Amino acid sequence: MEPTSTKLITRWTATEPAQIEDELVVEEPLEIRVGQQSLIVVMRTPGHDFELAAGFLYTESLITSGEDIEIIAYCDEETSETQSSGLSSLQNIVNVRLTGELDLGAESGWQRNFHANASCGLCGKMTIESVRQQVPPLNSRFHVNREVFYKLNDRLRKAQSVFERTGGLHAAGLFDEKGELLIIREDIGRHNAVDKIIGHALLADLVPLEQHVLMVSGRASFEIVQKALFARIPIIVAVSAASTLAVDLAKEGNLTLIGFMRGQSMAVYSCPERVHSE
Amino acid sequence: MEPTSTKLITRWTATEPAQIEDELVVEEPLEIRVGQQSLIVVMRTPGHDFELAAGFLYTESLITSGEDIEIIAYCDEETSETQSSGLSSLQNIVNVRLTGELDLGAESGWQRNFHANASCGLCGKMTIESVRQQVPPLNSRFHVNREVFYKLNDRLRKAQSVFERTGGLHAAGLFDEKGELLIIREDIGRHNAVDKIIGHALLADLVPLEQHVLMVSGRASFEIVQKALFARIPIIVAVSAASTLAVDLAKEGNLTLIGFMRGQSMAVYSCPERVHSE
Repeated sequence: MEPTSTKLITRWTATEPAQIEDELVVEEPLEIRVGQQSLIVVMRTPGHDFELAAGFLYTESLITSGEDIEIIAYCDEETSETQSSGLSSLQNIVNVRLTGELDLGAESGWQRNFHANASCGLCGKMTIESVRQQVPPLNSRFHVNREVFYKLNDRLRKAQSVFERTGGLHAAGLFDEKGELLIIREDIGRHNAVDKIIGHALLADLVPLEQHVLMVSGRASFEIVQKALFARIPIIVAVSAASTLAVDLAKEGNLTLIGFMRGQSMAVYSCPERVHSE
Repeated sequence: MEPTSTKLITRWTATEPAQIEDELVVEEPLEIRVGQQSLIVVMRTPGHDFELAAGFLYTESLITSGEDIEIIAYCDEETSETQSSGLSSLQNIVNVRLTGELDLGAESGWQRNFHANASCGLCGKMTIESVRQQVPPLNSRFHVNREVFYKLNDRLRKAQSVFERTGGLHAAGLFDEKGELLIIREDIGRHNAVDKIIGHALLADLVPLEQHVLMVSGRASFEIVQKALFARIPIIVAVSAASTLAVDLAKEGNLTLIGFMRGQSMAVYSCPERVHSE
């Protein structure tokens, strides 16, 4: 399935409308099943679906390492019910087989079987108390020269192929300490792009990502910080604003959260000691 | 609770960092209870919480009119458990008392007790089949002069007080056919801003909103179109792109979906007959 799709639209630019072909970003549901049982439906942009499933399970604390995953595959059968809905296809269901049992008991705070939209990353918790996952604070001494941060935005944007064409996607990029872009993922959901990056790293046995910088094209919210903490990423850079809860969690987790990364200006919300002057 | 909060941050603009006070948008969980039972936790910007609860219940098809609501109030007691979590406060739990029973049976496709983050609007569905709510297509003959559309963006931005200060909020505005702004709501979650508008209209007995235009500050995704269809809003205008699924649902629902509303240019994705030339 392609990440974009072409549709005939009406464009008004002058006094007369014109019909043109326009390229739109694809939004489709992905049902993640664990051991054939439905766990969640995520609205996402197709592509890197196995990474998304792996990253989601990991950052939701349902698995603890890539070794917990035996195999991930698209579902090889479709029920008549899903066929009739028009929303589903074989490429919209992935099944994850784990090496062990999945604990979705009351203590995990999880409910099976719920739905999440394109922008949703933290679904499944029962109450306010279970929203905050328990992750130990970072003690990484990793640091980056401030000149490196100034280059990240351009490098992420240059690598954003789909975004350039449709204007409808969030991007997340993983950088090393020299500012080299290692992985980029784009998705209609910001947290999906992050899950795809973390899932990629997990499947490639690169987690913990203790020497890395995560950059996101939009805002930094609570769940982005939480996902980074799970993968032990010590620095997050957001092009736009951070929320109060994101900053609070970053401080608690000893994570460096940077926002409004534009040109040679940035706002460091927490742990500024990881930004070096020279 | 205020929609923004001030934090001490480190700002790099030149070669030296400076500590400044910065205003951030507040992100806090809101637990919506129906009849004292927890239904969902939504990450939202505080403010207009009763509207948010009403709009959420309505656009998730859990109530069918404002008359189904007997009373909405903040929770008047807090358990020791929520106190200790640090995430919760009296202002983060609303309880809705309905005049009748809430049907959350298997046929509703709903699961009780799950969590949604700031950007999530369609949670609680069990499988792909239940994502798409059943709403009849619009048959409204409502139409708007194209000159009116060109004014909406400016009017929405001028009314966006919190966004101006923090850059961290989505806005949604409800306009009449002359382009007069009737209601504006801002939230860290785009769908929350829409739920607050629809909830306001529901509590003020203004639904169905058959003579209205809904404008959103960001992108138009599937769930925004679905929420508008529930409230019978015939036209959605988005500042940015629309997704494929949003366009598909708009076409099915006979709703006019407009994107990339900038200056005197716009992309009409569906039902262009509601855009008149003079």
